[in-house]
Amino acid sequence: MTAAQAATASAPIPVLAVVGVGLIGGSFAAALRRAGHVGQVLGVGRNGPSLQRARELGLIDEAVDAAQAAARADMIMLTAPVGSFGAILADMRDHLKPGAIVTDGGSTKAQVVQAARAALGPRAGCFVPGHPIAGGEKVGPDAADAGLYTGRNVILTPLPENRAEDVARVRAAWQACGARVMEMDADVHDQVLASVSHMPHFLAAVYVAQVARSADSAQRLAVAGSGFRDFTRIAAGSAEMWRDIFLSNRSAMMAELGQVRAVLDEAERALAAQDGAALEQLLEEAARCRRDWKAGH
Amino acid sequence: MTAAQAATASAPIPVLAVVGVGLIGGSFAAALRRAGHVGQVLGVGRNGPSLQRARELGLIDEAVDAAQAAARADMIMLTAPVGSFGAILADMRDHLKPGAIVTDGGSTKAQVVQAARAALGPRAGCFVPGHPIAGGEKVGPDAADAGLYTGRNVILTPLPENRAEDVARVRAAWQACGARVMEMDADVHDQVLASVSHMPHFLAAVYVAQVARSADSAQRLAVAGSGFRDFTRIAAGSAEMWRDIFLSNRSAMMAELGQVRAVLDEAERALAAQDGAALEQLLEEAARCRRDWKAGH
Repeated sequence: MTAAQAATASAPIPVLAVVGVGLIGGSFAAALRRAGHVGQVLGVGRNGPSLQRARELGLIDEAVDAAQAAARADMIMLTAPVGSFGAILADMRDHLKPGAIVTDGGSTKAQVVQAARAALGPRAGCFVPGHPIAGGEKVGPDAADAGLYTGRNVILTPLPENRAEDVARVRAAWQACGARVMEMDADVHDQVLASVSHMPHFLAAVYVAQVARSADSAQRLAVAGSGFRDFTRIAAGSAEMWRDIFLSNRSAMMAELGQVRAVLDEAERALAAQDGAALEQLLEEAARCRRDWKAGH
Repeated sequence: MTAAQAATASAPIPVLAVVGVGLIGGSFAAALRRAGHVGQVLGVGRNGPSLQRARELGLIDEAVDAAQAAARADMIMLTAPVGSFGAILADMRDHLKPGAIVTDGGSTKAQVVQAARAALGPRAGCFVPGHPIAGGEKVGPDAADAGLYTGRNVILTPLPENRAEDVARVRAAWQACGARVMEMDADVHDQVLASVSHMPHFLAAVYVAQVARSADSAQRLAVAGSGFRDFTRIAAGSAEMWRDIFLSNRSAMMAELGQVRAVLDEAERALAAQDGAALEQLLEEAARCRRDWKAGH
């Protein structure tokens, strides 16, 4: 046994496979490596040059296909767009190493759980759903950062059929990345995240598309300042990834959109009626909530 | 003549008065002081403790009332909420020192110009309207920062009756703060700013108010991450200031809101219909615009 093999064998996760080695998956691998929590890292992806880049950056040791990853890995982290999970898991199902844990970093959970159950059938108990509340507008392996999860929340939404020790291993992996881990029901997760994560992305994208389509968009963008910068940062994220998130969390998003529209109507009515008191009250409500949140973070 | 008096007399702006010594006005004073562009700085405001704090911080030398500021200052910068400009200028009108320039940092221009004309009458030519595209969610004199305007855009919307040399002096003051100065028609300014500045504040406030009113707001806010943080930063701004901005730019805002709603409707229809291609196209449009903007800044 070589020194490298010995190190691999003794790490809490001897062999990790990451499917989709971008910001989320690449950062997970980098953080676990830095913590000495992982031995070998396999990378799976559709994009050859991207996997090659992940190797150059030392995020992964080897690029393999889904079946090989299933056969060799002790833990598999899915960080591809959530719409692709069903197909990936179907490819893996008949090759999964005994005792292997599959987990994910997907931003929605109810539909991911449904896809995992459909694809894995009686083996669905090996799937421990998770969601790190971290990200950024950068994409691809170059965006990976071993410190991305430090102090961030990670939500696990375990299945009734998960083994407690598997959940504990996923929890320990995230803790090794520096994250705080909490557990939640998948449906509650999706409602809460529709509000504080998906809705901001949806609104930011709608707003930026409206600016982009304006006849005078160049002039607008030339004078846009720091308010615009921060408000729209998330609109630069991966269109494919967010398409999947919105579609897979559609019913919670539709319900939230109804609520947002109600407040938008109220604010617009106050503006149209030049009702300064009503407008200021709404603005003050928002400002107080945001200042309190900041104080708590 | 003392050394301090000599320095005051030789500075490009011997005596500056700032009405509303908070983030915008305090930073203007601090930047001009740092550049040696100003002699003495007078502060005017409704809030005694805030003016006292501005003195402690060295942002102003003396707190005075509007009439005294008018009588003594060579340049007067209005950075109070725009809704108060009419009353302030009316208080100053009969006391203005010959040759004094009045300028402002208000976020809207057409209604400010109207208020200035109404208040100053035949002396309106001394009013050079301006708007620094800079800010932040912090308020009050402690937020003042001599570097706030470095590299930022400042838009002047001169009146036909302004003297060219007065416009040049306002321009020179902003340049001494490190800003880039451009000129624009007041109506064009208001339309463009409704889009890239006021609309983000409006939408962020609406969104945060909706989150704040949810029965499970505490749980939502507990898992909110960096996307929420950046998207909502501007919602923490001064409710009074933003109320005035929205009201004073009402017609441009209403027009923009109609456009934003049209894109929101389109995005919601795509989501409701599970039309992934339409959704992705809209997201990609937004992402491309935002990435290009970032690349240009």
